[in-house]
Amino acid sequence: MRIIEPNGEYSYLFSRYEEPIARVEPGEEIVVHTEDAYCGLLRSESDNLEEAKRKRRGPNPQTGPIYIEGAKAGDTLKVHIIDIEPARDWAVSCVHKAFGGLTPNKFTRMINVALHEKIYIYRFDNEGMLRYNDFLRFPWKPFMGTIATAPAMEALSTSMPFENGGNMDAPEVKPGNIIYLPVSVDGAYFFTGDCHAIQGEGELCGTALEISARVKLKFEVIPGKKITWPRIESPDEYMVVGSARPMEDAARIAYAELIEWMTEFGWDNIDAYQALTQAGKLYCANMVDPNYSMVAKVSKTLAERRT
Amino acid sequence: MRIIEPNGEYSYLFSRYEEPIARVEPGEEIVVHTEDAYCGLLRSESDNLEEAKRKRRGPNPQTGPIYIEGAKAGDTLKVHIIDIEPARDWAVSCVHKAFGGLTPNKFTRMINVALHEKIYIYRFDNEGMLRYNDFLRFPWKPFMGTIATAPAMEALSTSMPFENGGNMDAPEVKPGNIIYLPVSVDGAYFFTGDCHAIQGEGELCGTALEISARVKLKFEVIPGKKITWPRIESPDEYMVVGSARPMEDAARIAYAELIEWMTEFGWDNIDAYQALTQAGKLYCANMVDPNYSMVAKVSKTLAERRT
Amino acid sequence: MRIIEPNGEYSYLFSRYEEPIARVEPGEEIVVHTEDAYCGLLRSESDNLEEAKRKRRGPNPQTGPIYIEGAKAGDTLKVHIIDIEPARDWAVSCVHKAFGGLTPNKFTRMINVALHEKIYIYRFDNEGMLRYNDFLRFPWKPFMGTIATAPAMEALSTSMPFENGGNMDAPEVKPGNIIYLPVSVDGAYFFTGDCHAIQGEGELCGTALEISARVKLKFEVIPGKKITWPRIESPDEYMVVGSARPMEDAARIAYAELIEWMTEFGWDNIDAYQALTQAGKLYCANMVDPNYSMVAKVSKTLAERRT
Amino acid sequence: MRIIEPNGEYSYLFSRYEEPIARVEPGEEIVVHTEDAYCGLLRSESDNLEEAKRKRRGPNPQTGPIYIEGAKAGDTLKVHIIDIEPARDWAVSCVHKAFGGLTPNKFTRMINVALHEKIYIYRFDNEGMLRYNDFLRFPWKPFMGTIATAPAMEALSTSMPFENGGNMDAPEVKPGNIIYLPVSVDGAYFFTGDCHAIQGEGELCGTALEISARVKLKFEVIPGKKITWPRIESPDEYMVVGSARPMEDAARIAYAELIEWMTEFGWDNIDAYQALTQAGKLYCANMVDPNYSMVAKVSKTLAERRT
Repeated sequence: MRIIEPNGEYSYLFSRYEEPIARVEPGEEIVVHTEDAYCGLLRSESDNLEEAKRKRRGPNPQTGPIYIEGAKAGDTLKVHIIDIEPARDWAVSCVHKAFGGLTPNKFTRMINVALHEKIYIYRFDNEGMLRYNDFLRFPWKPFMGTIATAPAMEALSTSMPFENGGNMDAPEVKPGNIIYLPVSVDGAYFFTGDCHAIQGEGELCGTALEISARVKLKFEVIPGKKITWPRIESPDEYMVVGSARPMEDAARIAYAELIEWMTEFGWDNIDAYQALTQAGKLYCANMVDPNYSMVAKVSKTLAERRT
Repeated sequence: MRIIEPNGEYSYLFSRYEEPIARVEPGEEIVVHTEDAYCGLLRSESDNLEEAKRKRRGPNPQTGPIYIEGAKAGDTLKVHIIDIEPARDWAVSCVHKAFGGLTPNKFTRMINVALHEKIYIYRFDNEGMLRYNDFLRFPWKPFMGTIATAPAMEALSTSMPFENGGNMDAPEVKPGNIIYLPVSVDGAYFFTGDCHAIQGEGELCGTALEISARVKLKFEVIPGKKITWPRIESPDEYMVVGSARPMEDAARIAYAELIEWMTEFGWDNIDAYQALTQAGKLYCANMVDPNYSMVAKVSKTLAERRT
Repeated sequence: MRIIEPNGEYSYLFSRYEEPIARVEPGEEIVVHTEDAYCGLLRSESDNLEEAKRKRRGPNPQTGPIYIEGAKAGDTLKVHIIDIEPARDWAVSCVHKAFGGLTPNKFTRMINVALHEKIYIYRFDNEGMLRYNDFLRFPWKPFMGTIATAPAMEALSTSMPFENGGNMDAPEVKPGNIIYLPVSVDGAYFFTGDCHAIQGEGELCGTALEISARVKLKFEVIPGKKITWPRIESPDEYMVVGSARPMEDAARIAYAELIEWMTEFGWDNIDAYQALTQAGKLYCANMVDPNYSMVAKVSKTLAERRT
Repeated sequence: MRIIEPNGEYSYLFSRYEEPIARVEPGEEIVVHTEDAYCGLLRSESDNLEEAKRKRRGPNPQTGPIYIEGAKAGDTLKVHIIDIEPARDWAVSCVHKAFGGLTPNKFTRMINVALHEKIYIYRFDNEGMLRYNDFLRFPWKPFMGTIATAPAMEALSTSMPFENGGNMDAPEVKPGNIIYLPVSVDGAYFFTGDCHAIQGEGELCGTALEISARVKLKFEVIPGKKITWPRIESPDEYMVVGSARPMEDAARIAYAELIEWMTEFGWDNIDAYQALTQAGKLYCANMVDPNYSMVAKVSKTLAERRT
């Protein structure tokens, strides 16, 4: 199977202006090699996080852009996530000085003393769990923190979740699920990276169990189908990810788009609004990135009742 | 079993200034009869919602205050929810003109034309499902939309979720779970009402399947134990409900208080912050009330590892 | 002139349930004696703020309720602020541990170490300025931090700005201006207090130059005139104060209500929307209270063009 | 005097990846020709706004990038705004279907019916006022809606206000004032455009009096001086513009950075926090763009007291 790796340098922008590192046909299964969010620069609890952040070109190195043959602006890209395998036997998480959900940061500025940095290195133990100590020990539940197509014009930081995906940090971007992304430029310019061995909802301190991984994917193109925000399909549910600030705007986007999706099954939009009131789900994927991400869900059983 | 009903009039405030309608000993099992959020005034799709809203004294009529013997300000009230039974064979939901998660409203003001009102009456069908039509049909998953103790000084609208509970609209306030509420006045002054036959996360249009119900409860008092926000214990999880605006402030409260709870099990607060980053859950209970409510969760297995 | 003072105890709630301390006829000029936000408990830089907060029954002691003869629910109360005189030769401000615009607080929870408390006592110097030291020295620009009528049902904390006024901390509530408040209960139940010797926009650290003062007022009642949010009239401008969270919701309320006001002069609401786009003003009164307050303004010249 | 115009095409990104259209020495006075926010495509009330939006490559066409000789990443660019002259005898504003401060939009999604579009063409009358009709008539108070240096890595939409300036829509970016911008790439890559004949605070409906204009500027470079957010100096005041969502985050940035600026004059940061509490100003520049912009101000007299 073809393994796609960067040509030398990872990408630090979701951007159509970068040269594609590979061209892939719809239907072809590929493996994408991804580096961790810290570019592999943090390997020990005694490493210096500030120094690592200065050294790396940016957060969340991406493998891409990958040119998807046949994808045209205005289409939808369907990404089947087949499998994720760790490329290292350890993962890393950090408490940052001024980044995270419960500390003043670049966007929510305050004048308090910053937190103390702390680095956690987790290693796979012989039960396949990622272990820092007896208390901080978690199963392997991998997903890709970032997955995106390039924006139509902008070149965006890989820390950003937005209309075309990006750094959503949504645990549902995982093996067995299908991700639908808007195609804004010919070739789609697909990016992925920032794999997480596991992550809770909200990614509270700002860093999951960050790990280098190999992601097995297959693409399809839905020609002429236009969507506005990323959609996810699991075996049982349809979901939309909205990313914005404040968090209620992310929630509004997610549910408004899920109503849109339900109208494609024949629902009237007010009845879909009613249906989601009684049976929708709405969780927080991240409360730390430049946009917050909320995931709204509906069961396929309910959504498909109108078909 | 003792059934507690209002003496004539329901209560429309979470308030220590109202006369207790009953006094209950810790350990006694009681049944509380509750009216629906519209005071039973909406019974047909052709009823007039605006008129019903004018007629009722307020939203969410409460059964209470119930005086809990022995509860002192500074204690914690532990409420065991044993069972919820419907008191009617129908439930009602509405799309309001200017209330709900995807429409301009009292707090998020705009100049657009209001929505058209729509009333949905759901009736139990012979499979025990609540049915409006073939598409809008939902199972009985009851919970109490409001549960509260009185604030220390204020008398608050029963539309409000706040530190002592209130209109959280959190589906986890359900049979089998335990709710912990701060006691701010002697006797606790407990209120409940606004039962929902079922509700999705966020209560998107603002009204769940509103139903009159009978709630079986048992109280315990934890003397001298002070909590700041409502906690929920299910068989498997510990949860905190934070209520605030914007939604990220509700999320911050929920997770910050869950960290507090974990420190009671022996966790260092930074390690708890790390643990919740990898394994916490965070969903939206309501995105429509005067405060938004977010529920943060941790599994008992993880929380109790430090004990 | 009649001086209105509390009967023993100040009030700590905006509430219809308190007994009126005075009854005033429209047109009568009165003087209201107000205590400072700390109940006069902080008098030296070495005082203990936490202790003072424990001692006081609440923040912002109010002089009231004052019963306005002839005011009926559904009317508007017109309050002429004639003069404010200091009742002490000093004022106090504090940096709080966990309250203020640039520090984590009760609503925006974080896990950082709290700020150090600092108390600033300002004394009038012989140029009539309030002086802490050579650098922190400010002119006397007094206004009332709180001004309210009682809510229809609730009893609200005097820290709260809301539909009927309250703790807006808007520097425009000053001598020479007229404040219009909704009347929600017969008699209006008027409250005022929390005078500030001076305050910047936003009340950044949470406490202005807090001072005991005597406020000269005159009331008028506009029968049958219903307003929804507080309005202010200066010699040159019409203003509305919106209070909500997040701050954009406060801004939306303020401008949406100012459009309403302009339609009373004959403006079409879309043209008023256009006019305010080009010539409205919008500043932040407070970014620290349970609701943030934004003040939207339009010049009388512009507003009255359609009359 | 040298007039800088685009080479054929305006720029629609704040981006270091575009080719500079001119190179300017510090100290040289230049005139920059700017197109209006609609690319000159709206000229009559009967034009079609949606069509114009489809035709243009983006909002807010920029004249730039202009390479500033000697500017290095990490420096500060000091922009003296000397004069703004109209390049047309008319200006245009619009009410959009789904863009603006009091209507659901791309970020604050709802399901209501959209507004009716309305186009307002304003022409200079013989008193030098911009006149739509007898009621909508405003003086010439020009400023530049956008002013920016390129981000370090990203290429951002010209609708975006951010750390390096951008679409702040701050009326203080006007003749007589000095704007300080961070330099993130060698040569600074300066952009400006989107001139407004006049605009109120908040830019309520989303479009000011949009006009093509000629802007006279002079640049200085402050080597080795690093600032994080845009600063403005008027003859009497120092200001910082913070841009973020929700609006309180923009306010926090503006005041936190203004405290930083005051420490450069010798202030202790807690005393600066106190000083701004009593004498700072805080207004809303825009409540419609992808980030909201808030401007915090302090008088030079106060700020310089510690020098």
